[in-house]
Amino acid sequence: MTSLLSRIDRPQDLHALSEDELQTVAQEVRELLIDTVGEIGGHFGANLGTCEIAVALHSLMDSPRDKVLWDVGHQAYPHKILTGRRDQLPTIRQYGGLAPFCARFESEHDIMGAGHASTSIGYAVGIKEAMLRGATEDGKVVAVIGDGSMTGGVAFEAVSQAGGLGTPIVVILNDNGMSISPNVGALSRYMNRVRLDPGLWEAREGVEEKLTKLPAGIGAAFERLGPRFKESVKAFWAPGLWWEELDWAYLGVIDGHDVRAMRRALKTAFEAERPVVIHCATVKGKGFAPAEDGGLEGMEKWHAAKPKSISQRMPAPSRPSSTPAPPQYTTVFGEALVRECERDERVIGITAAMNSGTGLSILQKAMPDRYFDVGIAEQQAVLFAAGAALSGMRPVAAIYSTFLQRAFDQIVHDVCLQKLPVTFCMDRSGLVGDDGPTHHGVFDIAYLRPLPNMTLMAPRDEAMLVHMLHTALQIDGPAALRYPRGAGVGVELPSAPELIPVGTGEILREGERVALVGYGTGVGKALGAADLLAERGMDVTVADARFCKPLDKLLLASLAADHDLLVTVEEGVLQGGFGTAVWESFADEGAVAPRILRVGLPDAYVTHGAPALLHEEVGFTAEAIAARVEAAVLDRLGV
Amino acid sequence: MTSLLSRIDRPQDLHALSEDELQTVAQEVRELLIDTVGEIGGHFGANLGTCEIAVALHSLMDSPRDKVLWDVGHQAYPHKILTGRRDQLPTIRQYGGLAPFCARFESEHDIMGAGHASTSIGYAVGIKEAMLRGATEDGKVVAVIGDGSMTGGVAFEAVSQAGGLGTPIVVILNDNGMSISPNVGALSRYMNRVRLDPGLWEAREGVEEKLTKLPAGIGAAFERLGPRFKESVKAFWAPGLWWEELDWAYLGVIDGHDVRAMRRALKTAFEAERPVVIHCATVKGKGFAPAEDGGLEGMEKWHAAKPKSISQRMPAPSRPSSTPAPPQYTTVFGEALVRECERDERVIGITAAMNSGTGLSILQKAMPDRYFDVGIAEQQAVLFAAGAALSGMRPVAAIYSTFLQRAFDQIVHDVCLQKLPVTFCMDRSGLVGDDGPTHHGVFDIAYLRPLPNMTLMAPRDEAMLVHMLHTALQIDGPAALRYPRGAGVGVELPSAPELIPVGTGEILREGERVALVGYGTGVGKALGAADLLAERGMDVTVADARFCKPLDKLLLASLAADHDLLVTVEEGVLQGGFGTAVWESFADEGAVAPRILRVGLPDAYVTHGAPALLHEEVGFTAEAIAARVEAAVLDRLGV
Repeated sequence: MTSLLSRIDRPQDLHALSEDELQTVAQEVRELLIDTVGEIGGHFGANLGTCEIAVALHSLMDSPRDKVLWDVGHQAYPHKILTGRRDQLPTIRQYGGLAPFCARFESEHDIMGAGHASTSIGYAVGIKEAMLRGATEDGKVVAVIGDGSMTGGVAFEAVSQAGGLGTPIVVILNDNGMSISPNVGALSRYMNRVRLDPGLWEAREGVEEKLTKLPAGIGAAFERLGPRFKESVKAFWAPGLWWEELDWAYLGVIDGHDVRAMRRALKTAFEAERPVVIHCATVKGKGFAPAEDGGLEGMEKWHAAKPKSISQRMPAPSRPSSTPAPPQYTTVFGEALVRECERDERVIGITAAMNSGTGLSILQKAMPDRYFDVGIAEQQAVLFAAGAALSGMRPVAAIYSTFLQRAFDQIVHDVCLQKLPVTFCMDRSGLVGDDGPTHHGVFDIAYLRPLPNMTLMAPRDEAMLVHMLHTALQIDGPAALRYPRGAGVGVELPSAPELIPVGTGEILREGERVALVGYGTGVGKALGAADLLAERGMDVTVADARFCKPLDKLLLASLAADHDLLVTVEEGVLQGGFGTAVWESFADEGAVAPRILRVGLPDAYVTHGAPALLHEEVGFTAEAIAARVEAAVLDRLGV
Repeated sequence: MTSLLSRIDRPQDLHALSEDELQTVAQEVRELLIDTVGEIGGHFGANLGTCEIAVALHSLMDSPRDKVLWDVGHQAYPHKILTGRRDQLPTIRQYGGLAPFCARFESEHDIMGAGHASTSIGYAVGIKEAMLRGATEDGKVVAVIGDGSMTGGVAFEAVSQAGGLGTPIVVILNDNGMSISPNVGALSRYMNRVRLDPGLWEAREGVEEKLTKLPAGIGAAFERLGPRFKESVKAFWAPGLWWEELDWAYLGVIDGHDVRAMRRALKTAFEAERPVVIHCATVKGKGFAPAEDGGLEGMEKWHAAKPKSISQRMPAPSRPSSTPAPPQYTTVFGEALVRECERDERVIGITAAMNSGTGLSILQKAMPDRYFDVGIAEQQAVLFAAGAALSGMRPVAAIYSTFLQRAFDQIVHDVCLQKLPVTFCMDRSGLVGDDGPTHHGVFDIAYLRPLPNMTLMAPRDEAMLVHMLHTALQIDGPAALRYPRGAGVGVELPSAPELIPVGTGEILREGERVALVGYGTGVGKALGAADLLAERGMDVTVADARFCKPLDKLLLASLAADHDLLVTVEEGVLQGGFGTAVWESFADEGAVAPRILRVGLPDAYVTHGAPALLHEEVGFTAEAIAARVEAAVLDRLGV
């Protein structure tokens, strides 16, 4: 490489460059992204939108003393490139490679770890207030947050706190008019109005002049009106009155792809001794024609790229045409939900800005009136569902396991305590793969099981998902289903859903001495382990618990009576999880508990990488389970 | 009673009254409140502020077809009085009596159950959208929310969704400038500016006139400026531009104690086919001189009244002078935190609008620079703490157990995953008493224990609280302490705190056959049970686990080796709780688990009432534990 970029080994290397050179570096970052992410896959569109922002920031900052916080972090690839990780970019999202988001254990320049949205401003306030109290060397603190993330309530809480304290931080509102899906809600519409008003900047000067030359009578009348009128004029001067009302200074709208303009705004902001927001307009997928020209749909499609897709300038087909793969759980869910909506007019679907990720895009197309996207606002998704349930509807809140954590209190206080029939459909349960620890859905069993009135279930395959969704919708109270990312196991889909009796499991394979009891994806692993054990001469029983709450106590008691060892298999943390629930079901009855071996995920945050590699790492494979069963049996035999 | 109020048995009875009569009814409601709450205690100040709002609403609505949602519900006593529960008012907050907040299982007029803040707007959107789809009979939907509750992020999420959808709901912003403590944050300041501007309404008409008579040149110049100028003028017209930008219509500021004015605003709002906020100014403690005249301090003091305090026109002393009661845990914590702050300049205290409830008022007075109140915004409290921890501070987030549920995702994603040294101090753990199921802190063990990197501990008495706070602050990662509402057990407070070795328990009493292992308040119950058992000739061992994570596995193994039965005692739900953790500690080692009897709280929401009554109801008493131990021992003996 003879490029300028090849000489940027640390962000400070940008300080010596001219603004023209900086603009060139940004373009080189973009080209590197298109080449690299095109080959290996990864978050794409958002990163093409932040090349100039990252360059402008680091050209004026001294990281890590000065701190840039990237909200979510899926748009921080340019930052990674500029902070000493250029050559590692091809490893991003790969097992053992760079993290998909900012990770504070990866680089001193990744100040804040993230993956979930809307946290950067809150962090920034804490960091700056600590600096002001001498806890660490003082420096600039900048949060870069997308317009989509601003809809999250916690971002608003932080804006209000910073405005209240006057904390001198800078927020770059990176406004591309999109989250993953097109944005919804009034805040987005407000930002759109501001961003899209073409006459805004030109008009301003004219008015200022006119107002200073008002005829005396008018001027005096205005004068009498006092400070309120000044505010009114300010509203005209500053299109960011929403921010100004919250005691933030507003700069904008700035072209986020113009390094010079960004630097000018940043210099102004860094001199202000109060919170400043720089509202900049960027283009998601900037510089990559298929994304840029594809409109909203193009941007959503290119939010993340599949391997090889960029070099071919088209997204990889989701199903290779040669071998018809099983459908994705997400698709099965989306289609089943449409059928439930057709069957029962009370059913509606709710997503928090994960339209296609949850499969609700299928409902949106089929029955737009029964579809709700609340934006990145999981708490509101659940409250909205509670309100609708109260009015006789049967809302289905489709929220990834990990994101549902945001709405924990609403589940406890507004759904379970009120015994409302809200169905939670938790896609991406278990280890999700490339997105890593922030996205693994491994806590949901543990945090939902203690809640009174809750029914918990997990399908072992895509057909059972159809049955369980149908079943959940008949329950007169809250229910939650968990299912994994990716393809189903390949069973035939039912023509009509069946009701599964609540709290009943099912024996899938009869054996002796050892009973494996799976939950959700654990069932497939248990069946695999049973196959391996059978090859080695050990014939074990396999059951599908189907429900984690209520548990099938009769089935468990009968398995305990007929076997020496119960082995529970679940894709979640073991503390308070399904296996523990099995023990509790005996303890609660005052019964002697059988010997129980629990297989699940460790008490640790698991890294990113292909799910198969992660499963290997944590021992969540048929082989590992079989080996543990053998060891346990030998141990009991005293060998 | 010959009053008008005595004839109001259902809200519809208000429809026939004149506006003067309605104003009188409101005053009669106020007098009833002063008389009744003054005798029995309960939420006080806020209810005196909503008498006219409740009367105005029900005079124009047809509840329960039309739906009024009271945010939190601590200000809904007037609503309860007007909806058929007048005569039951003296039972409020008492065991078996009216619920302290709105409770949907208590009355068809309590549409939404609550107790936590900021949920009403979100619910309202769900209810109205369901109505619009024919799920239930159409009707008016009104959320009454305090200015303090508006700082909660989920309220903002709901405002944004409703604005985006154009959902025709009405929000009454009941602005008294207070939550329990004086409000903080920029949003409050904004509302204050609007509320306190005296010239606002008078000036408006003058300007309108002048603007329509602008000299031609100026008018044309303005005209050229296009819609942006109109918005600017609107900012002057409508002080609620913050709301208008979010596509809400704004009406205000209205005198919330003027029934006529409120009714006029409501009629306008009900006719609008879009979301409307009515900003009304009220006085917390209205009509009760000691509260009204006491300034901010008076309002905070009279947020809730102690029994008999009103009739004597003074709050009951917190400690009766005759018998010096043990200090409150809250006070011990607040004082210990000040000493930690003196000892270590990195320590800061953070509250989410619970200044005196958490004891942080003590820190605020002693070291205001080390004290942060983020408002009702638990998520931001935790993010702020994370940011400060990242910068070398040792933040202590003092948040009630039940309210910390709001910040669950921040704990998982922003603290534990990042291994940041944030200390969570969870006051009000266990059954809190009068405030009931929304406020019981019974889930925290279960939802925090599955989180990697977390240390969990619970003091058995107020001296141990001092030691544990000190210990937590030395841990290089997240830690959480839980302790109950109310007075300590009466032990002497240490002159200096000691470090408790992390993950170690302590044997308090040596016995045989049965070992009771308590956690937090469970230790006191275990000791009490041991006393009773000793009287009956059974000498049991009692240990204090002190830590729930990590557990003292050595101690537990040794107890298991020396006893036939372990009895765990904890004031939390049993699913995934401390007792379960004890079993897991054996299972994780592949060891044979001892027989374990778990004592704790049931898988149900427990009602409100005096803690002693609730403990009786759920069997969390020394007597009940002793009886269960005896039964378990007999059972094992085969008797």
